[in-house]
Amino acid sequence: MTTPAATASIGDSEFDRDTAVRRRAGEPHVLDTDLSAGWTIGHGVNGGYLLALTARALGEVLPHRDPFTVSAHYLTASRPGPAEVRTQTVRTGRSLSTGQASLVQRDEDGNEVERLRVLATHGDLSALPDDVRTSAAPPAMPSYEDCLGTEHAPPGTLSSLKQTGIVERLHTRFDPATVGWIMGQPSGRGEIRAWFGLADGRDHDPLSLLLAVDALPPTAFDLGLSGWVPTVELTVHVRAQPAPGPLRIAIRTRNLAGGFLEEDAEVWDSRDRLVAQSRQLARALRG
Amino acid sequence: MTTPAATASIGDSEFDRDTAVRRRAGEPHVLDTDLSAGWTIGHGVNGGYLLALTARALGEVLPHRDPFTVSAHYLTASRPGPAEVRTQTVRTGRSLSTGQASLVQRDEDGNEVERLRVLATHGDLSALPDDVRTSAAPPAMPSYEDCLGTEHAPPGTLSSLKQTGIVERLHTRFDPATVGWIMGQPSGRGEIRAWFGLADGRDHDPLSLLLAVDALPPTAFDLGLSGWVPTVELTVHVRAQPAPGPLRIAIRTRNLAGGFLEEDAEVWDSRDRLVAQSRQLARALRG
Repeated sequence: MTTPAATASIGDSEFDRDTAVRRRAGEPHVLDTDLSAGWTIGHGVNGGYLLALTARALGEVLPHRDPFTVSAHYLTASRPGPAEVRTQTVRTGRSLSTGQASLVQRDEDGNEVERLRVLATHGDLSALPDDVRTSAAPPAMPSYEDCLGTEHAPPGTLSSLKQTGIVERLHTRFDPATVGWIMGQPSGRGEIRAWFGLADGRDHDPLSLLLAVDALPPTAFDLGLSGWVPTVELTVHVRAQPAPGPLRIAIRTRNLAGGFLEEDAEVWDSRDRLVAQSRQLARALRG
Repeated sequence: MTTPAATASIGDSEFDRDTAVRRRAGEPHVLDTDLSAGWTIGHGVNGGYLLALTARALGEVLPHRDPFTVSAHYLTASRPGPAEVRTQTVRTGRSLSTGQASLVQRDEDGNEVERLRVLATHGDLSALPDDVRTSAAPPAMPSYEDCLGTEHAPPGTLSSLKQTGIVERLHTRFDPATVGWIMGQPSGRGEIRAWFGLADGRDHDPLSLLLAVDALPPTAFDLGLSGWVPTVELTVHVRAQPAPGPLRIAIRTRNLAGGFLEEDAEVWDSRDRLVAQSRQLARALRG
């Protein structure tokens, strides 16, 4: 496999540096951070990156570190730069704890603007039993070698994507059957599949799964839409600790109606384990 | 069809009376309510009923009445009796507004206990365009007449269900292919399908859709589990105003692993419109 050389590790990588949060002295429930310009896409900062950063802050505050289920309502578009995460512990239990967080920035006039509000229930993935009884199967897609990286895109077609910082941070190889939209030939099925890693070779953990579920181009492109598709709400279930190696992600939209669509993501690890499931509600704005 | 006689209407029904909330004088963001014993199931009050009641409170406070996407994290088991809903307006926009709510009760010692915490983004369903581009299809299931009501259950098999108040409030007719678990013969597929109405004949609205997604027996029963399956988190998308007449609900679990399972629900109205989608993360406790 031509996966990226493993130059970075969990805890010491671009993703870890760019999701770092610092507990504020005297206000232990507030964490300061900087939204990196490295994870921007189109009109703002990637929603999965924001979710990972916010869940990391909650993991610092709650007695349980791993996000099990995280629900985020996106309020306004984030910008690179300083931000703070205000957390609240809602309930602590033996095996699960629930917290709430607000990601807040200041606008040009210095006024506080809330970017997203999150409810999350955390636990300890390593404490779960090993039983698996699943009828879900990994997505049918070509091998890593037979999928297409951004280097295979025809000249010019990805010019808008290349302007976004996040493309440089990700190592994504698409199922050729799901990228016709790049050439103006969307399949109309509303499905995109890809192998997914971080460009610096960092392996995955529960936090990078929160990035993964929102890291592919929107399914709306495969439905023939070309406008912006802002997320209204995104909920992610992290179901298992991901094994080393690239993930497979399948995203799908079944119902585009009334100007809104759902986008479901399934994320599989190298051991064929379903490690995350997500669903978001997004608006389809005219392109 | 032997649907219930339409003796009740939206605004004047058991469901409306039992989800009534009263704004507290001097504290306009707090709404008082009473959790009805009519919607209990097993160990507590039904989670969909609680969600509907909480969303109704948010609809009173936010500038938009209809829940578009509602995420609830369940903290402790609710009991019939007095409760209050504490709301906060997070953001108001032209077409969407976001709010937060906590449902709180007092325990025997008078201490406050939070039951669930909710984030919701509301809008106006009647303002959405009529476009539908869906690949989703209604569940394949027998006609209303060929499905089975609780009156068809063999004597004794539903004794535990009959002890719960909610069975009397609902009019549910199950696809015979998905009720083998009642006779100790679960299919193992993790699927249950049913026609669904309210026993007093009230038609559906966005609030009763929040009830509908959590009103069937757990898919875990069809997987052969018999213990309690408490909801950790439940997120519902309401996609359209439901037409009059019974709903069809299909719930499904694909991944039971590590003691947790997701349960997805799709809700279709009498015009074959996908009116709600939901997913919950639940724990599978030993029976």
